[in-house]
Amino acid sequence: MLEKIRIVLVNTYHPGNIGSAARAMKVMGLDRLYLVSPNQFPHEDANTMAAGAEDILDKIVLCETLEDAVGDCEHVIATSARPRSHQVPAMTPPECALFAHQTPAAEEVAIVFGRERSGLTTEEYELCNKHVFIPANPDYSILNMASAVQIIAYELYQKSLTHFEPVKKEMERPSAKEMKFFLQRMEERLDDAGYFKGKPKDVTLGKLRAYFQRSLPEKAELSLLQGILTRLESEEDWQRRQQIK
Amino acid sequence: MLEKIRIVLVNTYHPGNIGSAARAMKVMGLDRLYLVSPNQFPHEDANTMAAGAEDILDKIVLCETLEDAVGDCEHVIATSARPRSHQVPAMTPPECALFAHQTPAAEEVAIVFGRERSGLTTEEYELCNKHVFIPANPDYSILNMASAVQIIAYELYQKSLTHFEPVKKEMERPSAKEMKFFLQRMEERLDDAGYFKGKPKDVTLGKLRAYFQRSLPEKAELSLLQGILTRLESEEDWQRRQQIK
Repeated sequence: MLEKIRIVLVNTYHPGNIGSAARAMKVMGLDRLYLVSPNQFPHEDANTMAAGAEDILDKIVLCETLEDAVGDCEHVIATSARPRSHQVPAMTPPECALFAHQTPAAEEVAIVFGRERSGLTTEEYELCNKHVFIPANPDYSILNMASAVQIIAYELYQKSLTHFEPVKKEMERPSAKEMKFFLQRMEERLDDAGYFKGKPKDVTLGKLRAYFQRSLPEKAELSLLQGILTRLESEEDWQRRQQIK
Repeated sequence: MLEKIRIVLVNTYHPGNIGSAARAMKVMGLDRLYLVSPNQFPHEDANTMAAGAEDILDKIVLCETLEDAVGDCEHVIATSARPRSHQVPAMTPPECALFAHQTPAAEEVAIVFGRERSGLTTEEYELCNKHVFIPANPDYSILNMASAVQIIAYELYQKSLTHFEPVKKEMERPSAKEMKFFLQRMEERLDDAGYFKGKPKDVTLGKLRAYFQRSLPEKAELSLLQGILTRLESEEDWQRRQQIK
């Protein structure tokens, strides 16, 4: 689902940003990186920042112009930090990800990131048929280029997990009946321990019940709690012990 | 809506990452950054990478321990690139953002990012009552720390554009510090009561801790629970009573 997507960086100034972008891509399952006339590449800063994503650097496609990089794509999506003079449809990042996934597998999708300072030229922008903007702080919207790649890649990856289920061990929950038994036993044990003396019992008990219900214990946890109740001292014994002391 | 949120970086090794994190925050409208024992700070790399977000660096709060940084927070959210052993509820980034926005304005929310290589220690993790993980490429999930901050900040900002803080009766939550105190006291009291005899103490205690963290008690409920602990019988007395019977 992510195979049809290429990330295109135009005229990147700092080679470190190329490495960071590669890492940002790889961590979200993307691996096709195109560079349009980078200032310096290859460069050791790119390798340093790639930190394990060098395989992406190794198969980078170097191009002279944006047209060389995206000419064969059905979909070319420009990115920016502000909604541009809406000449092409503007999307938010999740809309962009949804769009990318909904295009047929045989169609190529390019997502284009402009220069660090000046973005895309009008001519480059006109090669794009879609536009994604990342909503950001209006007083400071200069998103780092690799961060922008990270956000878009993140959204693409999340959408690729359509059938994602959290890796989570099934927890065994007590039945309502077991929970009720626990709460009854708690009341008996606390009564026996004189816990309610000097307290409005109904209110206090109601609060404790509500708390334990809301806490959704697992079965195993419930028996740990039962164990605690077992260890409550009876009021009688407690009184006796107070006198001895 | 974003004012109640603080970003906490634990033991950051590269000062440049601190600057990148500050920039990632500012571009998404966040401005409260806490550092727990950074390797090097202040440092020129932090300023270079902040690129316009130096105001965030200027008001950074420096702390010795994670407890110092989040002790006063009602909500402490650990981040990681994988779902951890389900001890506290795991959320995706959008769920985390929704959660943060739905907490009352008066409650403090800390989002905690661990060390670049090794994340958070178990002890640090136990201070957290929620957990957010960023789904990523299972073959390469080493998200750059500042990129992780960027993704979470991005989600928080997006939610702030569309969600309004609920007018909601405020429940008084215990702070992370008060919760830690309760858990320590629980351990002492249970130890004293011989509760752990014949049980693997670390495992049992870990489960109880995780359960009580997850249960999100209110302040009033916490003191009811404290009251129950007070009534635990010491092992000695229990033994004596067993002999009499």
